[in-house]
Amino acid sequence: MSAISLDELNAADQQAFVEALGNIYEHAPWVAEAAARKRPFRTLAALTEALQEAVQAAPEAQQHALITGHPDLADRAVRLQTLTVDSRREQSRAGLDRLSDEEFERFQRLNEAYRARFKFPFIICVRRHTKDSILREFERRSHNDVTSERSAALREISRIAQLRLDQHVKGPDRLKVHGRISTHVLDTLNGRPAAGVAIELGIVCEVGMRQVIARAMTNADGRTDRPLIAEEPVPIGCYELRFAIGAYFAAQRLTLPDPAFLDVVLVRFSVAEAEGHYHVPLLTTPWSYTTYRGS
Amino acid sequence: MSAISLDELNAADQQAFVEALGNIYEHAPWVAEAAARKRPFRTLAALTEALQEAVQAAPEAQQHALITGHPDLADRAVRLQTLTVDSRREQSRAGLDRLSDEEFERFQRLNEAYRARFKFPFIICVRRHTKDSILREFERRSHNDVTSERSAALREISRIAQLRLDQHVKGPDRLKVHGRISTHVLDTLNGRPAAGVAIELGIVCEVGMRQVIARAMTNADGRTDRPLIAEEPVPIGCYELRFAIGAYFAAQRLTLPDPAFLDVVLVRFSVAEAEGHYHVPLLTTPWSYTTYRGS
Amino acid sequence: MSAISLDELNAADQQAFVEALGNIYEHAPWVAEAAARKRPFRTLAALTEALQEAVQAAPEAQQHALITGHPDLADRAVRLQTLTVDSRREQSRAGLDRLSDEEFERFQRLNEAYRARFKFPFIICVRRHTKDSILREFERRSHNDVTSERSAALREISRIAQLRLDQHVKGPDRLKVHGRISTHVLDTLNGRPAAGVAIELGIVCEVGMRQVIARAMTNADGRTDRPLIAEEPVPIGCYELRFAIGAYFAAQRLTLPDPAFLDVVLVRFSVAEAEGHYHVPLLTTPWSYTTYRGS
Amino acid sequence: MSAISLDELNAADQQAFVEALGNIYEHAPWVAEAAARKRPFRTLAALTEALQEAVQAAPEAQQHALITGHPDLADRAVRLQTLTVDSRREQSRAGLDRLSDEEFERFQRLNEAYRARFKFPFIICVRRHTKDSILREFERRSHNDVTSERSAALREISRIAQLRLDQHVKGPDRLKVHGRISTHVLDTLNGRPAAGVAIELGIVCEVGMRQVIARAMTNADGRTDRPLIAEEPVPIGCYELRFAIGAYFAAQRLTLPDPAFLDVVLVRFSVAEAEGHYHVPLLTTPWSYTTYRGS
Repeated sequence: MSAISLDELNAADQQAFVEALGNIYEHAPWVAEAAARKRPFRTLAALTEALQEAVQAAPEAQQHALITGHPDLADRAVRLQTLTVDSRREQSRAGLDRLSDEEFERFQRLNEAYRARFKFPFIICVRRHTKDSILREFERRSHNDVTSERSAALREISRIAQLRLDQHVKGPDRLKVHGRISTHVLDTLNGRPAAGVAIELGIVCEVGMRQVIARAMTNADGRTDRPLIAEEPVPIGCYELRFAIGAYFAAQRLTLPDPAFLDVVLVRFSVAEAEGHYHVPLLTTPWSYTTYRGS
Repeated sequence: MSAISLDELNAADQQAFVEALGNIYEHAPWVAEAAARKRPFRTLAALTEALQEAVQAAPEAQQHALITGHPDLADRAVRLQTLTVDSRREQSRAGLDRLSDEEFERFQRLNEAYRARFKFPFIICVRRHTKDSILREFERRSHNDVTSERSAALREISRIAQLRLDQHVKGPDRLKVHGRISTHVLDTLNGRPAAGVAIELGIVCEVGMRQVIARAMTNADGRTDRPLIAEEPVPIGCYELRFAIGAYFAAQRLTLPDPAFLDVVLVRFSVAEAEGHYHVPLLTTPWSYTTYRGS
Repeated sequence: MSAISLDELNAADQQAFVEALGNIYEHAPWVAEAAARKRPFRTLAALTEALQEAVQAAPEAQQHALITGHPDLADRAVRLQTLTVDSRREQSRAGLDRLSDEEFERFQRLNEAYRARFKFPFIICVRRHTKDSILREFERRSHNDVTSERSAALREISRIAQLRLDQHVKGPDRLKVHGRISTHVLDTLNGRPAAGVAIELGIVCEVGMRQVIARAMTNADGRTDRPLIAEEPVPIGCYELRFAIGAYFAAQRLTLPDPAFLDVVLVRFSVAEAEGHYHVPLLTTPWSYTTYRGS
Repeated sequence: MSAISLDELNAADQQAFVEALGNIYEHAPWVAEAAARKRPFRTLAALTEALQEAVQAAPEAQQHALITGHPDLADRAVRLQTLTVDSRREQSRAGLDRLSDEEFERFQRLNEAYRARFKFPFIICVRRHTKDSILREFERRSHNDVTSERSAALREISRIAQLRLDQHVKGPDRLKVHGRISTHVLDTLNGRPAAGVAIELGIVCEVGMRQVIARAMTNADGRTDRPLIAEEPVPIGCYELRFAIGAYFAAQRLTLPDPAFLDVVLVRFSVAEAEGHYHVPLLTTPWSYTTYRGS
């Protein structure tokens, strides 16, 4: 499924429209069929709304079928055979294809209990999550009643659909489905941006491991050329920025102790909104630093 | 060897004096013998100086014997049999009795190369060091010429002696052999000390592990009742303070995102002077913090 | 009235006791007379309580007489003739004897309106106030009803009495009538206390003038040898600390622009509790600074 | 003299070119005449260079005439009659037309001594200066020898010319003659930009007065819609930013003391390069703030 323009979608015949958008909602071309009648759409936001309305307007049995058409999160065997390509790619990013045996069993157990209670699979927009936040949501939502949980499932399906739409359809507007992590390093010893500071961004897991997901070097303005994460949702979870400010100041031939007081500065913070902008600057000397959620 | 007072030492006969101080310099009672003649000593500093002068005044062969009387750092087999009690206790603190096989081999290799070059064992005041800083010093000093390295060995022997003296003899003064790590948490959301913040101090190893060496809770003044390290040298190396400020602010019933932006704040810093005072405060809100080497 | 000890007061005969404490409550020796019967007092706090109880237990007419026995705040002519020595000294500190003609008229106007409404003079413990905060209180309290305002007047009389007691009677305890302003300057360029920084503390008036009330130089620990204000109430009002950090860094032969980015750092803050401890540190480089209410 | 394009200048005949640029160098159309021969110019930078070369290449007598063609800085009487329009406007911005009698006399005295020593008027690009920095430069340059001072005068004439060129000629490039003062307010109590904070920028004079030169309100991003100063040189001198953060936090219905600890935050800083970008952010809670030269 390569990108198509909103204009093309508006001009397409019904069948081509449904074919183009058929997989936006997993195994549910009827959603696109219903929305097709409301063409033309001037914006992606309007198209999104029409698709959501189609889901809302559907009979409960059809909504149920939409939900049950989604794969079990942690069911690897099933996944490899029957997942759509989009589904497979999404689940891989959160690390669900790299579960340890223990984690796999934990997911299986939660899955079984969930299915026994709700009679449908646990659905979550995995691109908005880390493995840890999926687990937290899984446990939290397991206590819902069936009605709330059906709403939760449909809300997640809508989030998945919006992300797919954002990827596959080009329109005059952008859906608000992306977040951002960025930083800025100020050298308050010299009153100027800190250029050439090596930065790492990692995801911190509950079990204590850290998975590095971005590396960058600050430019002349003390920023990275591109945000550390952008143009995608920022998975909800705990992050750690590492700033190699020891090496930065060592290059200035200052008289510092050996080892220097500060070497790698660690800033750990959590993301609660996958669509939020997390700007986390660092103001630093060889002896002090300040960090904060900026803008 | 239990504590004795400087007055008692001054009043003791020559043999009792040497017996009391005989192990201050490893296997070298002649140092105490030489110093005994300069009695009485009004301060521990004066006694220390007399002992050092005795070493400096000794013929080179005797100095050499003093040096070679010390055990190989990483030679476990030898260590268990021939170390003095003081020596064994000191080496255990730096983790030298808990080396992995790989580390043990690394120390052995360095030891052999060192012995081949200098014809005497590598001596370092282990209570002033972590495993990592010992390794760094070992490698750094291996490049010395013999004369410099003999001076280095005698300097370390003098440091070891001062620490033993500080422990075993009570005088009117204190030798400057102790350092300190302390902290102070300010809640700049409310303009007051942050009470009840759980704090951990750990040593960070090069291989990435962290060994927790102190735990404390801040009191009403935002400080810990006792410094995190005091009344001993602060081993040279890399430390990490962990402040549970997420739990602290969560108890205030603020409206914060879930998960909160900040949970455990990590402050990593290095100690270069084992006798230094490292005061590392934290000024914090749920969205920002500042840390620095204070006083 | 020179200082007397609590023991002496306990041992004195009734007349001597009343003479010693007669002026603690302005023109009202009957308060001391009533308290005398409750001797002995083990603490100043107990003596204070007994005096307050005597006032509370008095008939309304006597309380009224106590209140009306106090001078009009801004009535200079009357003041010079009939004020007690204590009263005169207290009013001079807040600058009430250095009013401009305009301020004098403003006080007079408020005084007249107040007297017309309440039939007694406006009483305030001037040592806890600046000219500006007296004016604010005067205006605020003018809207009270008579009962509340009588309570307010008695509360202020009690505060005046406690301060006089603190000055004239020595006991085993201290009354909590003093506040403090202190500071601490950290040089985060070098990771050490900033020694030799000239500091000024001033009171900022609404009309924009600043009256310097303390000057000090930081010592080796970055603090002033004595707090800037201590052993007295800190007058409620707006303060400004001035730190000559430009001169401090200029002495370090750094390469800085001319003029330097920072010269005199101004920190303006307000005191709301005259008995509070206001510790206001400064963390600074030539290009940045942080200040906060510390502890 | 309204704006003209570089293309028009390139296409103009010699006389029109000289007429258009005749006043770029005060009373010295010969500079433009000399530069005209080097046309066409592709950039303003190239035109500027050609004009400067014309001055450098001129015989000393002609350079001297160029210098003496400039008015005495503080000579009001003369100024009103013989200054060019550009000259008059420039001198008014620095406040030279609003001198007190005392300041006027001080300038006159410096002017006389300067003229006696150098035989030409003191020339300075006033748009790059405040009254105080003019005075400092006046005193500093009075100690120069004649050769250095002639160079200094020509350098200032070139700066004046560049600013006039920037204003009157539009080209494909911009001359680097402008500076900037901007700010950004972060509310670290809530982890978001502080919107609606009233800000004042003033120039601080040596005599202690403060002249407000810009007022603004922070927008949703915590910034001002436009920089406080931009598109002009930032006069060298001492500035004060005032942030009404007391009012900002008061609007949040927090429980704060009365009066609040912080009301108006004052940040005083100096500008040393009129073409520099001075970004001075504020990170603040009701109890703390951090400021620094940012980027």
